[in-house]
Amino acid sequence: MSEFQGVFPAVATPMTPEGKLNESAFRRMIEFNIEAGVDGFWVAGGSGESVLLDDEENHHVAEVVSDQNQGRIKNIMHVGAPTTMRAAKMAEHAARAGVEAICCVPPFFYRRPEAEIVEHYRIVGAAADLPLFVYNLPNSTGVEITPDLMKRIQDEVPQLSGLKHSSVNFYNVRAFVKMGLYCFIGNSRLMLPALTIGAAGCVDGPPSLAPEIWVEIWQAYQAGDLKRAEVVQDRGSGLADALISCGEFHAVLKTTLAERLGIDCGAPRPPGLPLTAEQHAALRKVIVEHGLAGN
Amino acid sequence: MSEFQGVFPAVATPMTPEGKLNESAFRRMIEFNIEAGVDGFWVAGGSGESVLLDDEENHHVAEVVSDQNQGRIKNIMHVGAPTTMRAAKMAEHAARAGVEAICCVPPFFYRRPEAEIVEHYRIVGAAADLPLFVYNLPNSTGVEITPDLMKRIQDEVPQLSGLKHSSVNFYNVRAFVKMGLYCFIGNSRLMLPALTIGAAGCVDGPPSLAPEIWVEIWQAYQAGDLKRAEVVQDRGSGLADALISCGEFHAVLKTTLAERLGIDCGAPRPPGLPLTAEQHAALRKVIVEHGLAGN
Amino acid sequence: MSEFQGVFPAVATPMTPEGKLNESAFRRMIEFNIEAGVDGFWVAGGSGESVLLDDEENHHVAEVVSDQNQGRIKNIMHVGAPTTMRAAKMAEHAARAGVEAICCVPPFFYRRPEAEIVEHYRIVGAAADLPLFVYNLPNSTGVEITPDLMKRIQDEVPQLSGLKHSSVNFYNVRAFVKMGLYCFIGNSRLMLPALTIGAAGCVDGPPSLAPEIWVEIWQAYQAGDLKRAEVVQDRGSGLADALISCGEFHAVLKTTLAERLGIDCGAPRPPGLPLTAEQHAALRKVIVEHGLAGN
Amino acid sequence: MSEFQGVFPAVATPMTPEGKLNESAFRRMIEFNIEAGVDGFWVAGGSGESVLLDDEENHHVAEVVSDQNQGRIKNIMHVGAPTTMRAAKMAEHAARAGVEAICCVPPFFYRRPEAEIVEHYRIVGAAADLPLFVYNLPNSTGVEITPDLMKRIQDEVPQLSGLKHSSVNFYNVRAFVKMGLYCFIGNSRLMLPALTIGAAGCVDGPPSLAPEIWVEIWQAYQAGDLKRAEVVQDRGSGLADALISCGEFHAVLKTTLAERLGIDCGAPRPPGLPLTAEQHAALRKVIVEHGLAGN
Repeated sequence: MSEFQGVFPAVATPMTPEGKLNESAFRRMIEFNIEAGVDGFWVAGGSGESVLLDDEENHHVAEVVSDQNQGRIKNIMHVGAPTTMRAAKMAEHAARAGVEAICCVPPFFYRRPEAEIVEHYRIVGAAADLPLFVYNLPNSTGVEITPDLMKRIQDEVPQLSGLKHSSVNFYNVRAFVKMGLYCFIGNSRLMLPALTIGAAGCVDGPPSLAPEIWVEIWQAYQAGDLKRAEVVQDRGSGLADALISCGEFHAVLKTTLAERLGIDCGAPRPPGLPLTAEQHAALRKVIVEHGLAGN
Repeated sequence: MSEFQGVFPAVATPMTPEGKLNESAFRRMIEFNIEAGVDGFWVAGGSGESVLLDDEENHHVAEVVSDQNQGRIKNIMHVGAPTTMRAAKMAEHAARAGVEAICCVPPFFYRRPEAEIVEHYRIVGAAADLPLFVYNLPNSTGVEITPDLMKRIQDEVPQLSGLKHSSVNFYNVRAFVKMGLYCFIGNSRLMLPALTIGAAGCVDGPPSLAPEIWVEIWQAYQAGDLKRAEVVQDRGSGLADALISCGEFHAVLKTTLAERLGIDCGAPRPPGLPLTAEQHAALRKVIVEHGLAGN
Repeated sequence: MSEFQGVFPAVATPMTPEGKLNESAFRRMIEFNIEAGVDGFWVAGGSGESVLLDDEENHHVAEVVSDQNQGRIKNIMHVGAPTTMRAAKMAEHAARAGVEAICCVPPFFYRRPEAEIVEHYRIVGAAADLPLFVYNLPNSTGVEITPDLMKRIQDEVPQLSGLKHSSVNFYNVRAFVKMGLYCFIGNSRLMLPALTIGAAGCVDGPPSLAPEIWVEIWQAYQAGDLKRAEVVQDRGSGLADALISCGEFHAVLKTTLAERLGIDCGAPRPPGLPLTAEQHAALRKVIVEHGLAGN
Repeated sequence: MSEFQGVFPAVATPMTPEGKLNESAFRRMIEFNIEAGVDGFWVAGGSGESVLLDDEENHHVAEVVSDQNQGRIKNIMHVGAPTTMRAAKMAEHAARAGVEAICCVPPFFYRRPEAEIVEHYRIVGAAADLPLFVYNLPNSTGVEITPDLMKRIQDEVPQLSGLKHSSVNFYNVRAFVKMGLYCFIGNSRLMLPALTIGAAGCVDGPPSLAPEIWVEIWQAYQAGDLKRAEVVQDRGSGLADALISCGEFHAVLKTTLAERLGIDCGAPRPPGLPLTAEQHAALRKVIVEHGLAGN
């Protein structure tokens, strides 16, 4: 089936002690999530250290997820970059590597007029000619993709299919849905609320660590079992809050994965700092209390 | 029963052509909403022109809603003011007038340290000695009541019972609920999503114009009828969007009430401007299309 | 001469132990500043507890400053209020009381469309028919008076003469000056820099405590003595920084005045809290170190 | 002499029609500015398309400016990047190429805790072991370098010498100066005001187009000729305002340089869009009116 909906973990990019892509850990993480029933992945995005990867690393990641997937779920590969040319090249490569869709933050660093943002998406969209997801991440990019700006993109970019909405303007979910877009909420603690106003699903980091929770929310929601959905969402939100409180997010993601899967996933790329011993101890406590300790 | 939950319309303050409280229109609006099944009112708050009323008008409003109510629903009376003394006097009067609870914005205009905000609520809460609701309205007050600040208030103010949360930080609903507070979402387009993460209900202006819609959302939600709740929420959100797009909010509220109830509710108090002829025509169209034309 | 320029201290409103206007302390403060050579006052504005005063208190203040002044300097009386009617009544009264000009914050609490802001100023300006100064104080009002909005006000309000600019957009000083307005910088630590791009002078609280410093900056600037102006500005800025670091600003103003003039000026009106003993001790140290201890 | 002070134009990066570095135009622009009396350059920073250049291009730029300079003025080379490793490599290369100092934006895209920002600067500073300038550019990076954060950097980074301050918090200039830093104001329309509170000079794009204006401001200021400094600053500010109003800033910089020097400087790197014909015509008018038309 051709739809994009459900649970799409935003996966970390596991690394070796030398700071290179740890391909085997990456494949293991992907497989663990597929087995738990996720519907797709958001790859090399915010949780995946995105713009900290160089273009060759981005290419490598696209190849590994495509190869590991073998068409079982939907990989949405991130190709955002400060220049249109770099983003377009990554988009083209991702399509060749075999991902199911691409996603892209708007051009960042410089504040761009809307015409430049639209043109950026037009060229990137054409380069891959795959379903394109806008990545609305104003905390990182300084750009809020409003429904009005999205309409301009929709008018110019035939590949536009949806977005990850990681902004405080929660109510905009409904506006994006009314435009015919797949709107993934970018905060896993708001998956259920977002579904009730039309969201297609959830893209976020915590579901990559405990996919069973968000898969259950999705199943309960689809079954119309409101009370179960609420109970499980509350559990997931409590877990996500606890994880986030332990320290730098990439460090938390990689350390939790390592604990759960029993495979070293490395440290954040600098300037990201690894967890302190104290933070690691606090995180271990969260992992154990939420039943995520490795088997 | 003693709980605060469900649909609490934030009512306008109808006025005469001379700009005084239109008591008969006010009573009519209250009665219309009670008959539609609402659970209470948020009186003389943001939708009720709040700080544009002088203290005597605030007293009068408290007396009228209490008298009209006769204990059938729960009136939550707003008593916010720039000085603690004025707010405390209005709180004391509201209690004497017979309201079921009070609500209060934090002190505004000057940016206040947290200690002053907490002390303000302590004195106002003691003055009424009724359930106290914090009114988190950062767009008007410049103060975001965070969960941390709310905790300080909770520690010092025994009357604290809940809040109206009118802020973009939607996710904070859950944090407030976990503190044991009744958290009313202040955006009627987000009633259903907020309920799924623990909100007690909704306080907003549009439900005062079409209470039957939000009462149905509430009933569907309580019955676990997720699909019906979603459909009705979508209808209500479409109506609220359409109303808001027609012009200044107080003008829209009063004009819509006038059209629906067949009773003049006056104009916004200046500097609020009445609708232009063009805006009025657009609003009439919305009213008719959504079946709110008076009978 | 008819110009508005130079040092215009934004004066506190001294109070009695019972929290009423302390008229004798108020007159003493005014006289002390006039003797030090200031060019005018900004009365009952931000430093004067403005919207914490009721309308009768505002009237009383206007009468006292007019009577004490006897035409020696220029009193600019604040008349801002949430409703147009209240602001216009205070404006009318201020003119009758004999002030030289009025100033007014834009309507606050509700976010207003520009048309309502312009109309508010039009009615208030006409009510006094004196030179009108806009008070651009976005931290308190939530409204930034941009040069574009100011142009709309200028087109509709014949009394518009200038503004106090208390916003981070320092560069806008030049734009306001190019419109032919008297632009007073609202941060006394930036008086000299603002003068170099055309500001008419400075309106702020600290100059009311040590007027000799800012009067010297003004004189040095007018004499083209750049180095002396810089040295004295640096001294004033150091003092202002030290004062501000001691606690709630109204408490600092009143306590410093009391120490310097040897006359009790009362406490901030609640929710403003008085200085703690520790803060008071720190402030006393600043006062002594800067040679402001009373004689 | 070893000081960093005066006029440091933030130069564009001229490009060929193919979008590569136009070395001859670059050398011509540098020479034109040196002849006009500037004291140094801010190279490959915000005006130089900074993070739109790849690392090899950054290296090439550092080599060209060093070679062209031959020690006559001070080149401050930008080396900012999202990862510490990339920034450190560019820093190391810049030192080898022979620049006099480096500058660096804080790590961007991800919001970083202060410890990571400090560590980033520590490693980058050590890599070049040259005077290091922080680039405070919150509009692009999402990070405000406050005086408190700067103090942490100063404590850990022995190479720290100063900053370019491109933030609305104009008053912070004084705080940075009091820390013993060279503080360059990043807005050429505020050069004179900033000098009066201790700034070391100005770094901005417009001075690269009309260096004679800002050199004259600097000379007048140093001579204590306040009135001349004000008149010339006003002229420069008028020019900068006019230029900025013509369109995308990199396009304006390059097109104006081309007009003035008679040498094609290329287009902005996409997503930056070139000027439209209408914008180009407006810009030409500004150029002619301000006497910048090429000879």
